[in-house]
Amino acid sequence: MSFLGTFTHTLDSKGRLTIPARLREGLEEGLILTRGFESCLMIYPHSVWREQTQRLATLPRTSTERRVFTRWVYGGAIEVALDSLGRILVPDHLRAYAELQEQAVIVGADEAIEIWSPQRHDEILRADLDRLPGILDSLSERSAV
Amino acid sequence: MSFLGTFTHTLDSKGRLTIPARLREGLEEGLILTRGFESCLMIYPHSVWREQTQRLATLPRTSTERRVFTRWVYGGAIEVALDSLGRILVPDHLRAYAELQEQAVIVGADEAIEIWSPQRHDEILRADLDRLPGILDSLSERSAV
Amino acid sequence: MSFLGTFTHTLDSKGRLTIPARLREGLEEGLILTRGFESCLMIYPHSVWREQTQRLATLPRTSTERRVFTRWVYGGAIEVALDSLGRILVPDHLRAYAELQEQAVIVGADEAIEIWSPQRHDEILRADLDRLPGILDSLSERSAV
Amino acid sequence: MSFLGTFTHTLDSKGRLTIPARLREGLEEGLILTRGFESCLMIYPHSVWREQTQRLATLPRTSTERRVFTRWVYGGAIEVALDSLGRILVPDHLRAYAELQEQAVIVGADEAIEIWSPQRHDEILRADLDRLPGILDSLSERSAV
Amino acid sequence: MSFLGTFTHTLDSKGRLTIPARLREGLEEGLILTRGFESCLMIYPHSVWREQTQRLATLPRTSTERRVFTRWVYGGAIEVALDSLGRILVPDHLRAYAELQEQAVIVGADEAIEIWSPQRHDEILRADLDRLPGILDSLSERSAV
Amino acid sequence: MSFLGTFTHTLDSKGRLTIPARLREGLEEGLILTRGFESCLMIYPHSVWREQTQRLATLPRTSTERRVFTRWVYGGAIEVALDSLGRILVPDHLRAYAELQEQAVIVGADEAIEIWSPQRHDEILRADLDRLPGILDSLSERSAV
Amino acid sequence: MSFLGTFTHTLDSKGRLTIPARLREGLEEGLILTRGFESCLMIYPHSVWREQTQRLATLPRTSTERRVFTRWVYGGAIEVALDSLGRILVPDHLRAYAELQEQAVIVGADEAIEIWSPQRHDEILRADLDRLPGILDSLSERSAV
Amino acid sequence: MSFLGTFTHTLDSKGRLTIPARLREGLEEGLILTRGFESCLMIYPHSVWREQTQRLATLPRTSTERRVFTRWVYGGAIEVALDSLGRILVPDHLRAYAELQEQAVIVGADEAIEIWSPQRHDEILRADLDRLPGILDSLSERSAV
Repeated sequence: MSFLGTFTHTLDSKGRLTIPARLREGLEEGLILTRGFESCLMIYPHSVWREQTQRLATLPRTSTERRVFTRWVYGGAIEVALDSLGRILVPDHLRAYAELQEQAVIVGADEAIEIWSPQRHDEILRADLDRLPGILDSLSERSAV
Repeated sequence: MSFLGTFTHTLDSKGRLTIPARLREGLEEGLILTRGFESCLMIYPHSVWREQTQRLATLPRTSTERRVFTRWVYGGAIEVALDSLGRILVPDHLRAYAELQEQAVIVGADEAIEIWSPQRHDEILRADLDRLPGILDSLSERSAV
Repeated sequence: MSFLGTFTHTLDSKGRLTIPARLREGLEEGLILTRGFESCLMIYPHSVWREQTQRLATLPRTSTERRVFTRWVYGGAIEVALDSLGRILVPDHLRAYAELQEQAVIVGADEAIEIWSPQRHDEILRADLDRLPGILDSLSERSAV
Repeated sequence: MSFLGTFTHTLDSKGRLTIPARLREGLEEGLILTRGFESCLMIYPHSVWREQTQRLATLPRTSTERRVFTRWVYGGAIEVALDSLGRILVPDHLRAYAELQEQAVIVGADEAIEIWSPQRHDEILRADLDRLPGILDSLSERSAV
Repeated sequence: MSFLGTFTHTLDSKGRLTIPARLREGLEEGLILTRGFESCLMIYPHSVWREQTQRLATLPRTSTERRVFTRWVYGGAIEVALDSLGRILVPDHLRAYAELQEQAVIVGADEAIEIWSPQRHDEILRADLDRLPGILDSLSERSAV
Repeated sequence: MSFLGTFTHTLDSKGRLTIPARLREGLEEGLILTRGFESCLMIYPHSVWREQTQRLATLPRTSTERRVFTRWVYGGAIEVALDSLGRILVPDHLRAYAELQEQAVIVGADEAIEIWSPQRHDEILRADLDRLPGILDSLSERSAV
Repeated sequence: MSFLGTFTHTLDSKGRLTIPARLREGLEEGLILTRGFESCLMIYPHSVWREQTQRLATLPRTSTERRVFTRWVYGGAIEVALDSLGRILVPDHLRAYAELQEQAVIVGADEAIEIWSPQRHDEILRADLDRLPGILDSLSERSAV
Repeated sequence: MSFLGTFTHTLDSKGRLTIPARLREGLEEGLILTRGFESCLMIYPHSVWREQTQRLATLPRTSTERRVFTRWVYGGAIEVALDSLGRILVPDHLRAYAELQEQAVIVGADEAIEIWSPQRHDEILRADLDRLPGILDSLSERSAV
């Protein structure tokens, strides 16, 4: 089953964030925490990360795209484990990147989990609704979903 | 057999809606209720939802389309079960999204079920009839149905 | 064998229409009656309907084409059985859609059967003859038949 | 072996036409007689007709081309059997369509047989000779024969 | 082995033409004689004719190209057998088509054999030499030979 | 191993040309001698000739390219055997075509052998050197060698 | 597991650089050190180098791209082994190429490891962030990651 | 393992050149020495030469590209063996072609080995560095390395 639903949790004073129980399946063996492509953080289960690595391998090493993507996503990643209370520690520089303060919105996004500051999450949802018709046309042209 | 036909039912005071008996096949193991792409709600059986998830996995994670679609459809979804009378509970925010009040039109749409307010349903049917010739040309060019 | 030939029959006062004996093969297990794409009704055997459903499944759910086609064809369909005299009951709203009164022209159209009012049938045959050369060119370019 | 050669026969007063003995192979199990795409009639053996039906099935039902082709070729077809003298009865309306009077030119055209009035046959042969170079170029571009 | 080399033979007073002994291999079971695409006649062994018929079957019957090609090549063909002296009888109308009089140039053209009047053969060879560079470019672009 | 290297030999007074010993491998079973595409002659081993014939068979017979190529290469070809001294007899008309007099340059060209007059060989080598960069670009675009 | 994370180490006076322990997996059997495509050095494990060599083999040898790439990457490469302390010796000319002085930033870049001077690394990260949206679009169009 | 690294050696007075020991692997069974596409010579192991011959066979013989490439590379090639000291004899005309005098730069270029005069090698390296970014873009577009 893929990750589903939206949850709001509080970061404690040490920067620890509880992952909702319904989103912990598949993260028991550890997870990769890294920067997202918008102003959020991304949690990838190991299986998804491995599959991403395999896809990346189909790209020519001579492409600027591959080199930039690799430096940004792999050079910026850390391996994290859930503690006994289902929490992860978010390092300072990643909290800064995602502008996280007291609260975090945790969004089940199918294969991965997004972590947003509440304000950034409101903004992105409004933006998503506006561009939804264009997104659907584009997905339809790609014969994707 | 796919979902077929059009039915009108009444929501009770608690927001519960009876699913017509002929549309319950395949929903016994539960269903996913989420926002539709027009002003309606969508019911997906688990098997269809899983297949959608597999299709989604073919899209590059670097595409804005995939990220927006995922946040909107997966971040907004809830798992629901039919009660012993074949009813589902429609949460307030989804009733608001689809402008549902006393009555709902339930449309068998092959793999999924659409839930409309009667007024929105009338509007969409009129719009569909107008664009049908163009839709047929487009389907023919896609060599689809 | 596919459906073949053209027949004219009378609707009785209850709206029942006899299907010609030579067109009943494959309809014993029931049929789907729904609106055609021109001003006629369509009869599909179950096997053809199922195959159409499979083709439809290859279209992305994000395409407007799929959603409109589904609402129109599946939302408007009813399952019908032949009675012991080989008749089907045509509901009022479908008779109205196809402008059927006393007589109906029943056309074997390979996989499906078309039901026309005599006047509409005359009109479409004249239109077909006019556009036949263009239709053949187009079929040839599609490397179809 | 495919149908080969050109023959001229006389229609009797009842509209019966003898099929040349060398063109009867493959027609013993019956044949389909229908309108040709030019001003001639076409005889298809059952095996060719079945194959045409299979090709037709690859076309989307939403295409105008398929619907027009089907109404014209299938709606206008009749099944015919050779009598003990190797004759077929050509119905009045098909004789009228092909402008057949006393004599008919029967042309072995590989998979099917064409039936022409002598005058129409002369006309089409002259037209074919004129357009032959263009036809060859077009066939070569299609990498066909 | 394919047909090879160029030979000149005399037609006798009955219109019989001797096929050179080195070109008879593959013609023992009979041959098809028909009009060529230039002012020559063509001899096809049965195996080549059959293969041509199979290729033709990939063309849509709705294409004008297929119908014209079929009427011209199949409607104009006759089956011929070599007599005990290795001769074939060339019917008057085919001799007229190829402008054959006393002598005929017989050209081994790989899968088939061409029969030319000496004058026409001289003309076509001169034309071929002129267009050879363009022909080679075209063959190279088609990635053929 | 493919044919390799460049050799110069003398034609004797009877028009016989010795094939260098290192180029005889694969020619023991005979060879095809015919006109080359430039002002040279070509020697093809039987295996290469057969493969060329198979490639030719993929071209449509309706293409002018195939008919011209076939008349020129197959209509102009002769089968030749090496004599006990490794010589072949070059017929007068082929010597004339390639402008061969006392000496001949024999070039191992991978699958085939080219026979040039010394003067023509000098000319073509100079021309080849000039067009080499363009040839390399073109080969690279074809993703060939 | 692919190489992950960013580390800063000091080169000793002999030009030796310690590879972080977490990046040594897969380098025990030796590595290839060569110039990167930007102002950095690249470390490739043998398995990755071999795979690159196989990809290279699909390029035509006639392409300028293959010849330049080969001279630059293969002509400039050296095989290096980790010493017992997990260090490699960086030759002077490669240190010069990457402008390495006291410190080096070592970046896990999935299949390979990049070695940067701290200043160059800062510059490239800033450049990467700026071009990230365009890089994502391009990756999405390539349907890659 | 492919050929790797750059070496400088001296030609002796007889034109013999020592192949560096690390580049001799795969050359024990002999090698092909021929002109390179720039002002260098090329050494191909037999296995690479054979593979090149197979690639060449996919090109149409009617292409000018194939005929020019074949005359230049195959017509100009010689088979050479390493002597007991690991030297090859470079014929005068090839030394002249590559402008080799006292010293030669030997470059391991993956599948083959390039032999340059020191001056020409300096020139080509400078040219390669200049065009490297364009080469990378082009390789990336070809999805090659």
